[in-house]
Amino acid sequence: MSAPTSAPMMSACDPILLAETHEGVRTLTLNRPQARNALSVALMGALQQALDDAGADDAVRVVILAARGPVFCAGHDLREMRANPGAVAYEALFTQCARLMMTLVHLPKPVIACVHGMATAAGCQLVASCDLAVAAEEARFATPGVTIGLFCSTPMVALSRAIGRKKVMEMLLTGEPLDASTALAHGLINKVVAQADLVRETTALARSIADRSPLTVALGKAAFQRQIDMPLEQAYAYASAIMTRNMMARDAEEGIDAFLEKRAPTWCGR
Amino acid sequence: MSAPTSAPMMSACDPILLAETHEGVRTLTLNRPQARNALSVALMGALQQALDDAGADDAVRVVILAARGPVFCAGHDLREMRANPGAVAYEALFTQCARLMMTLVHLPKPVIACVHGMATAAGCQLVASCDLAVAAEEARFATPGVTIGLFCSTPMVALSRAIGRKKVMEMLLTGEPLDASTALAHGLINKVVAQADLVRETTALARSIADRSPLTVALGKAAFQRQIDMPLEQAYAYASAIMTRNMMARDAEEGIDAFLEKRAPTWCGR
Amino acid sequence: MSAPTSAPMMSACDPILLAETHEGVRTLTLNRPQARNALSVALMGALQQALDDAGADDAVRVVILAARGPVFCAGHDLREMRANPGAVAYEALFTQCARLMMTLVHLPKPVIACVHGMATAAGCQLVASCDLAVAAEEARFATPGVTIGLFCSTPMVALSRAIGRKKVMEMLLTGEPLDASTALAHGLINKVVAQADLVRETTALARSIADRSPLTVALGKAAFQRQIDMPLEQAYAYASAIMTRNMMARDAEEGIDAFLEKRAPTWCGR
Repeated sequence: MSAPTSAPMMSACDPILLAETHEGVRTLTLNRPQARNALSVALMGALQQALDDAGADDAVRVVILAARGPVFCAGHDLREMRANPGAVAYEALFTQCARLMMTLVHLPKPVIACVHGMATAAGCQLVASCDLAVAAEEARFATPGVTIGLFCSTPMVALSRAIGRKKVMEMLLTGEPLDASTALAHGLINKVVAQADLVRETTALARSIADRSPLTVALGKAAFQRQIDMPLEQAYAYASAIMTRNMMARDAEEGIDAFLEKRAPTWCGR
Repeated sequence: MSAPTSAPMMSACDPILLAETHEGVRTLTLNRPQARNALSVALMGALQQALDDAGADDAVRVVILAARGPVFCAGHDLREMRANPGAVAYEALFTQCARLMMTLVHLPKPVIACVHGMATAAGCQLVASCDLAVAAEEARFATPGVTIGLFCSTPMVALSRAIGRKKVMEMLLTGEPLDASTALAHGLINKVVAQADLVRETTALARSIADRSPLTVALGKAAFQRQIDMPLEQAYAYASAIMTRNMMARDAEEGIDAFLEKRAPTWCGR
Repeated sequence: MSAPTSAPMMSACDPILLAETHEGVRTLTLNRPQARNALSVALMGALQQALDDAGADDAVRVVILAARGPVFCAGHDLREMRANPGAVAYEALFTQCARLMMTLVHLPKPVIACVHGMATAAGCQLVASCDLAVAAEEARFATPGVTIGLFCSTPMVALSRAIGRKKVMEMLLTGEPLDASTALAHGLINKVVAQADLVRETTALARSIADRSPLTVALGKAAFQRQIDMPLEQAYAYASAIMTRNMMARDAEEGIDAFLEKRAPTWCGR
């Protein structure tokens, strides 16, 4: 008996999530291609653990979230969900998923989605929840839950904070996908590149950020998320305190001196 | 004496709001063409009643808001306002109008604006308040109140939640109209089509949504409006509870099973 | 010794902020070209005073914020900051800057940025904080603090309320500039014009707004800022009260009557 042609080199022992690190950039790759990288309980658990690890590992400066197979991520694993019915199981699942998405938002390192194909439902939510996203021209973004009677209410939380309301409502009510250039125009992603250039371009973006002071980046990303829901005056009071704290750090002192002396800075991470 | 050429078939008895329903889509049509469909107290009252009826009528799945005559809607009826002066009358009027706009937002069925011409002031607010909007190439969108000394402060509430702040300020401070393609680029509307295709395209969009589970659509639309003003963590807690509730519904069970079994679902609305 | 060719007419006595008023439009011009218009404590103080004066002066209807030299504004004066270290000094500086930015937001007159070149960090924040912005094709917008170890956390407050989150994160994490057309597409600015037309176009926009009722404009701008952070229902209650108050003003009465009588209105500012 031959292996399926769609995945000739894989075995049952392949891990569902791959991780590798080069020069401060950790790439996490969803690896359930036959299941369209559906977010099973096991895959969400593996991704949660991998993100927690990346957050705690000083060798990691930036995380790339990628995927293998024809699809980026098809959202929840419907077969698994229907096999484990009941409000208790569902609530546990959605709570796990929401925690995963908030981990992307609150991770002290930037996360860049590297989207090579279709991203639907919770898969689209992954992209919306990352700090940045680079996509191939073939990438598509959809929240088609309405077509199966299950409105994409949790993906909506991330999407409605990334793009305009009328466009989100269109995605949610019709289920129709956005192509990559439309997603770019509406601000869901940062860049569209040829499929052949996707990994190289995403890695180049990640490397440029990995060269920054990790303290500065962590402070800034956290401050972004904190201030965004505050009224203006409160946001300014908070951000001014963050700026002062940042200025008192060794890395800001070094960075400003290096700039004034026209030399490259050396970060100590404090 | 002949009838005015601009409305040859109309009489004084024509209703100011028309309503018709086909295959789950109720079309409400503003019908004060000579008055540029200005939102008189009577027209707002008729539209409020018609929306309340549509919300309560199980035969209605989607509402289209359209208009007759050269203009989509010119906003408040200034002549009527000046004929009924005083803070009490004005406050009653603006309260009625705000209630009407919030009815569009909270109606348990999607509302699609079908915009064939100029939409100004509260007319532009109608478009901004609908879930979706399809417009003809000739459509225009403006908040020109500033030119008559009456800043479009209530239209601003809807507009500033639909598009970016700098563009809204430009509309409010200059009164200049956006053309249809600019409105599309800024996310105020979902689609621009040729005038000749407007009704057909809007109806096709409405039909596609009318085919969905009404329970799912109502749950999702309400959840969208509730979560949008919440901080992220609270929004996820709320949306996760909604997802669980949605999963427990018969329509989600049916929809997911139909999807897995590659057949068309049959909704029961529960 | 000859004067530098880039600023042949300037002397050490040139004021760091220029102000002139024509037909209700006050133009404030940053005038530290050799220092790339860096916002020193002195320049922020001068701008604060000039804005307070413009706000209080009935002869001023609209403010234009412009700059001289090759750069619009390079943000904080790093040399001055490093010469005055310590948390107390930094906190005073950022508090002064935040107050300046909020003064732009709350000034009872519209403020239009006239951006001829690069606007970075707090300079980019000035543009984001103005009500409107017109830019030359050569203008650029960046928050490059991350490259010197100092995340642009206060500019982020203004930017993240003007444009989409993914684009802001890209600016903040990479430090790369947006060109004028990208800034326009994302809603950071209102118009891009040829460098030769910049002053004329900005002035024409300012003049058109200066012709409006100052009462109406002040009421509307303040209402915009107040309602934007409110939940929908509260925003409508507030805006409806503002509309009523606006309707009770003499200028609305005059404006509506003039409109109905097809004549030009005469504002009394009450």
